[in-house]
Amino acid sequence: MPRVSEAHLEARRGQILAAARACFARNGFHSTTMQDVVREAGLSVGAVYRYFPSKNELIRAIAEGAIGNITGRLDAVVVERPLPPLGTLYRTILDLVDREAGPDGALRMAVQVWGEALRDPDLADHVSQVYRKVRERFVALAARAQADGLIGRGADAEQVGAVLFGMVHGYLLQRILIGDVDRDSYAAGIAALVDRTTLTPGADPAP
Amino acid sequence: MPRVSEAHLEARRGQILAAARACFARNGFHSTTMQDVVREAGLSVGAVYRYFPSKNELIRAIAEGAIGNITGRLDAVVVERPLPPLGTLYRTILDLVDREAGPDGALRMAVQVWGEALRDPDLADHVSQVYRKVRERFVALAARAQADGLIGRGADAEQVGAVLFGMVHGYLLQRILIGDVDRDSYAAGIAALVDRTTLTPGADPAP
Repeated sequence: MPRVSEAHLEARRGQILAAARACFARNGFHSTTMQDVVREAGLSVGAVYRYFPSKNELIRAIAEGAIGNITGRLDAVVVERPLPPLGTLYRTILDLVDREAGPDGALRMAVQVWGEALRDPDLADHVSQVYRKVRERFVALAARAQADGLIGRGADAEQVGAVLFGMVHGYLLQRILIGDVDRDSYAAGIAALVDRTTLTPGADPAP
Repeated sequence: MPRVSEAHLEARRGQILAAARACFARNGFHSTTMQDVVREAGLSVGAVYRYFPSKNELIRAIAEGAIGNITGRLDAVVVERPLPPLGTLYRTILDLVDREAGPDGALRMAVQVWGEALRDPDLADHVSQVYRKVRERFVALAARAQADGLIGRGADAEQVGAVLFGMVHGYLLQRILIGDVDRDSYAAGIAALVDRTTLTPGADPAP
């Protein structure tokens, strides 16, 4: 029996995930069947199921890819010294959102998954775990900002982190549902609220 | 032909909306059919369609009821003089969220509607209009808070209002999806970020 290389397995996996993203973007998560994904991927049923035994597994893999990118970038942001003002930091953070906000980006899928999670305890459990993991980064950011005197020490970092995380949800929902916000204007709003400063429009975010 | 009283029409309408809420809570918006609502309401098909010719009309009516409550309360909050610190104000605002966060509250439906809106341009248009209307209240709040010196005047009130609105989305999503935030701790986080003060836990919000 021929040995299948790691690279081959990884490529197959990527091919299936790309097919799933395309199907979810076109028809929504709810209306997409595993059969649709099989057809889109151009593979056999067995090949697809070997990698992903259910639609929820596809969701998990797509979400984990996006979340991995986001937490990696957040980890890099939080250790910057000195910590830039939060309005400036959010330019970088919201840029991560913008990158996943397109038609087959993870965010449009995320919004659909939230709805599904309300009726699917397995998915709800997964979403809750993933969100706690991302929120931890915002709690770490809150603790750093408090230590650096950028924000008040009055509240628990957990409480402040929940709000810092929440501001990102507010951005992504308005961007997807209303469509008239952009990174710079939202970051300027955060700067006015939190940093009490004016952001210079168009200045480069932290790399 | 007997005249049907206003009160009777209103009661019928309420009966159908209650049935729709129950169906959406049980099976989700996507999987609920008009036939399910007809059955749940215990009325004839004709009676239900006379009031609501489609599922989207039901959604609109339920959303408008919830949004009407919320904007009414927000309007009352924004004219308070002197304007309380934002952390205190958000206790009141998040209380409005809590009231609609239950199993058949408008918020769980809202999360599902967001997902649907990504594939249904009519619904997307409606959601966008409704959200702009609610966001206007947060823009007014931002302008008041800037005029009173509670937050910086550096940014446009529109930009600050988008963030103030966004913080509410962050609360409702974490409350529904993770479940471990509550009004007092989130408001304390906002106070630390924006007011630079510590909120006394458990103090009564504005009525």
